[in-house]
Amino acid sequence: MKITNTLLQMVKTVSITAITVLSFSAHAADDKVYRLKLAETWGPNTPILGDATKNMAKIANEMSNGRLQIRVDSANKHKAPLGIFDMVKSGQYDLGHSSSYYWKGKVPNTLYFSSMPFGMVTTEQYAWFYHGGGMELMQEVYAPHNLLSFPGGNSDIQMGGWFKKEINSIEDLQGLKMRIPGFAGEVLARVGAKPTNIAPGELYTSLERGTIDALEWVGPAFDLRMGFQKIAPYYYTAWHEPGSETQFLVNKRTWEKLPKDLQVILETSFRVAAFDMYTQALDANATSWSKMKAEYPDIKVRDFPPAVLAEMRKATDELLQEQASKDPQAQKIIESQAEYLKKSRAWTAISTKAYLDTQ
Amino acid sequence: MKITNTLLQMVKTVSITAITVLSFSAHAADDKVYRLKLAETWGPNTPILGDATKNMAKIANEMSNGRLQIRVDSANKHKAPLGIFDMVKSGQYDLGHSSSYYWKGKVPNTLYFSSMPFGMVTTEQYAWFYHGGGMELMQEVYAPHNLLSFPGGNSDIQMGGWFKKEINSIEDLQGLKMRIPGFAGEVLARVGAKPTNIAPGELYTSLERGTIDALEWVGPAFDLRMGFQKIAPYYYTAWHEPGSETQFLVNKRTWEKLPKDLQVILETSFRVAAFDMYTQALDANATSWSKMKAEYPDIKVRDFPPAVLAEMRKATDELLQEQASKDPQAQKIIESQAEYLKKSRAWTAISTKAYLDTQ
Repeated sequence: MKITNTLLQMVKTVSITAITVLSFSAHAADDKVYRLKLAETWGPNTPILGDATKNMAKIANEMSNGRLQIRVDSANKHKAPLGIFDMVKSGQYDLGHSSSYYWKGKVPNTLYFSSMPFGMVTTEQYAWFYHGGGMELMQEVYAPHNLLSFPGGNSDIQMGGWFKKEINSIEDLQGLKMRIPGFAGEVLARVGAKPTNIAPGELYTSLERGTIDALEWVGPAFDLRMGFQKIAPYYYTAWHEPGSETQFLVNKRTWEKLPKDLQVILETSFRVAAFDMYTQALDANATSWSKMKAEYPDIKVRDFPPAVLAEMRKATDELLQEQASKDPQAQKIIESQAEYLKKSRAWTAISTKAYLDTQ
Repeated sequence: MKITNTLLQMVKTVSITAITVLSFSAHAADDKVYRLKLAETWGPNTPILGDATKNMAKIANEMSNGRLQIRVDSANKHKAPLGIFDMVKSGQYDLGHSSSYYWKGKVPNTLYFSSMPFGMVTTEQYAWFYHGGGMELMQEVYAPHNLLSFPGGNSDIQMGGWFKKEINSIEDLQGLKMRIPGFAGEVLARVGAKPTNIAPGELYTSLERGTIDALEWVGPAFDLRMGFQKIAPYYYTAWHEPGSETQFLVNKRTWEKLPKDLQVILETSFRVAAFDMYTQALDANATSWSKMKAEYPDIKVRDFPPAVLAEMRKATDELLQEQASKDPQAQKIIESQAEYLKKSRAWTAISTKAYLDTQ
């Protein structure tokens, strides 16, 4: 598209004099180029997460024939990886890509739209978002902040983390120093562990020197290069983030300025980039796990014992009940998720789980 | 968009005289309306499958600002539910929506792009399509027929079917008359059953009167209204279609006539409609299973015994080996799927399966 806005204005003017005003002006308006800025939490060239934003921008550009131009700024540019919510709310950026639970200190009910301990797996959660009322609840939480929020891609089910020692009972968690931020950290604190947060660059050294005894990161696709398998032999299976969804945020004024076709193009680009990120994450986890197993055959995959899981689940339920009792909106979201989990898991149990169990 | 093609031609002509030809003509070409016809295998108002085509047409129309107008013809209109391949190949229709394994009598290697017994579950298969070479193999099979093929939406993992008697050993399958068409039918024939195909409208009566002893249909979302639960108490879990993908077919000449932006819009509409159909199917299965359990608490969900599954798996492997030995392209596809299944299932085993097993 080499045509400039000025040229387009001329085209409009000339055409309008020649033809009926109403029909053509509706058409000519379509040629305006919208330049949007997106801020992402991730550093430059972050695989999977960073691919989602670039894929989204590319597909929106192609589908709009160049009328949507989205510039993606990584954290090295805007210097505020955890400032996405505020920057999009204020209009400093039009769009953001991040994860909803990062905003729980600011807007507590944003917590529920990433992934919850003992909650839905990715596919169940997508069904909840799109067919079980999840999208509507998410908009209700974000609307007062001048924001629209959309699922932004799933990084797949997360592993429970790397442990230097085996966990055989709840006693083994007492005083255990673990890097596990957010709500899952609160759950672990309630069962006796000592959750901490540590900058990514210091994780390996902290685990190696015993500053921490365990940590959770993501899954094989992100864990492999971190090298934790060299210093912590036990790789525990999932409980705290069974399907971590990222999010696209949109400034509401930006959204309202877009013509209808570009709104649909943008929303569809979000949805496709989100699903694509999920299949990419699945593929990357499978490929990385295959490599990891081959290079480090001594990795010991473990499930937490049933008694330990029962305690962690009890702590999760207590924390959720406390939040529900303080806040009607939290209660509504927690109940919606619990009901949908119950219904969808009953089906998952006789379908996917049954199939995988017979293999 | 009330603007007509004739009016658009006038606008183009007038504008071109006023402005530079090159820049504006590139733009004016965008305003052409493309009217495409899609034939679907499904009857009118078929839920889930029929929703996917209508959703696709709607979103393509909105994103193109009306430049893509897709008319969906159901089977009652074109009268050839299993003629989609031929009608799109010949150009009688521009687009089709159906399932790849319907064409195996015509082009044997189309079999592999729907779902295979003991094969990948839906999420693993999407990862194979988009990141494991599946899309490329599918195009290779369809290209000689003047066709492009895209994943068209997943109807979710299918149940193993409704049985009047419990299956306790391979002996119980000897001579068992079961409605189970296609490749899965060939597998069952090899272990001693008598597979048949019966028109959907006659299934209930056939099962009730004992013309057949068992049948597979889809899953709760489609089975509930068929009423099989009233006459066959055993509902067996999945083995033969762990993630049934439908497909969008495109006539290659139609595709090549579309400008680049409309190609991307069409392909993205396919991809989004496909993913949306999967979450819709998941939701519908969960909801229908919940109703079914409540209304028919005597339904007995059963896994096939390990020895029976082992025989069916052996028969599947033998049939695949026979096909691979006769046809290098079949061999390439079968090996690609087997390798990807191995890699992705190793990850599924320590992630989703482990998580579901601890619940």
